Amino acid sequence: MRYKATVAYDGTNYGGWQKQKNARSVQQEIEDAFLKIVQQPVKITASGRTDGKVHALGQVFHFDSDKNIDFKRAVNSQLPEDIYIRSVDEAPDDFHARYSAKWKHYDYLLIEKEYNPMMRNYAGFSREELDLELAEKAKQVFLGTHDFTSFNSTGKDEIEDQIRTIYRIDISREDNLVRFSFYGDGFLRYMVRMLTASLIQVGLGKADCSELEAWMEAKDKTAVSLNSKPQGLYLMEVGYNTFLF
Amino acid sequence: MRYKATVAYDGTNYGGWQKQKNARSVQQEIEDAFLKIVQQPVKITASGRTDGKVHALGQVFHFDSDKNIDFKRAVNSQLPEDIYIRSVDEAPDDFHARYSAKWKHYDYLLIEKEYNPMMRNYAGFSREELDLELAEKAKQVFLGTHDFTSFNSTGKDEIEDQIRTIYRIDISREDNLVRFSFYGDGFLRYMVRMLTASLIQVGLGKADCSELEAWMEAKDKTAVSLNSKPQGLYLMEVGYNTFLF
Repeated sequence: MRYKATVAYDGTNYGGWQKQKNARSVQQEIEDAFLKIVQQPVKITASGRTDGKVHALGQVFHFDSDKNIDFKRAVNSQLPEDIYIRSVDEAPDDFHARYSAKWKHYDYLLIEKEYNPMMRNYAGFSREELDLELAEKAKQVFLGTHDFTSFNSTGKDEIEDQIRTIYRIDISREDNLVRFSFYGDGFLRYMVRMLTASLIQVGLGKADCSELEAWMEAKDKTAVSLNSKPQGLYLMEVGYNTFLF
Repeated sequence: MRYKATVAYDGTNYGGWQKQKNARSVQQEIEDAFLKIVQQPVKITASGRTDGKVHALGQVFHFDSDKNIDFKRAVNSQLPEDIYIRSVDEAPDDFHARYSAKWKHYDYLLIEKEYNPMMRNYAGFSREELDLELAEKAKQVFLGTHDFTSFNSTGKDEIEDQIRTIYRIDISREDNLVRFSFYGDGFLRYMVRMLTASLIQVGLGKADCSELEAWMEAKDKTAVSLNSKPQGLYLMEVGYNTFLF
């Protein structure tokens, strides 16, 4: 039987989702927990990797098992307190966490003006307040289908193409917390953080729309040297139906 | 010259405010930072202690120095990233962070229903949703001036009396986060956490107002065995003028 699971995790103490030699990984922790439960190795496959320090509220993975147990309860009982399985449901045999995914939603959080020690692992920080009207205008450069070569760190030879579609970007502020929400058919490595960093630069008056357009047009890995720290990034949701909103 | 300073800290990695032998303390970190800046010991006196894991956004302390430097900038440069001096201002010679304080404001945060790993060090958790109307009624038991002997852990011989006045309690919910705000002339050890735990019990239908009244009336250290975990507690503000709202 194939199962689909949704998981939330605090990325602070991890080198990222994927198993790796020199750091703890979320994947390894979950596979270790499964091993304790079913007494045999269970391979889990996620919708995609997240980098070190990056958080998730709605990462999705699939796994196969012939056991019929309450996986959510059992696996959570073996996980550290910074990883939490939110749901486990039976899925069609051909469900694949990565290949069946139709869209993803990432949020980036930014604290403005005054540093907040409680948020140091959970948001970026800008001493200057952003002009969100400028950022709103600039986001138009990213909406729709583009070659995002300039706005990610994946090598051009590592992947078929770097064309992706962004369906929607929301920018909102509550008190001194700015939230950037990105919905797209897929995001390349560092892409959300580089797009966010670009919008922040515009909001700070240090870049304008025409520069963003020129960077996009360049399709050049060296065009954009901006990035934003991983602690502010959250994988919020992975969608398996057509994006409708 | 006497100075008044306001400090925010993430209590997660500390045994509390006060210097102690077997754990890091916020006080020690700040005094160490001062020592590096002015090259001589600086004694800092807070409005009161906070316990291990408890956070602050508006703890206040005073100190004396004949140096005329930008203390905020200088001390922050020497502090770990989980402690942040928000302000340093000149104060009257007779200003005392503890004895001049007229009121304090604490918040307690509680996540309901679904566990959130990002909030494990920053809020309490209840799998069941609270009935906030019941909690609103129950808070009336605590408002005003009472002998809070039953609702704190300070020994009766350690302190002159355990009579305190609570001016205001606000209870609000945003999504699945409940915030309890307490404003009073002073709070004894564990008092906010025990009051919150009592309101949570009422909100869960496991206690009612008459029980809370009976506990208050008992003035008995063994009457209330409820407590809520320190990670949800924040010292928000210390007031030095008459409480007006």
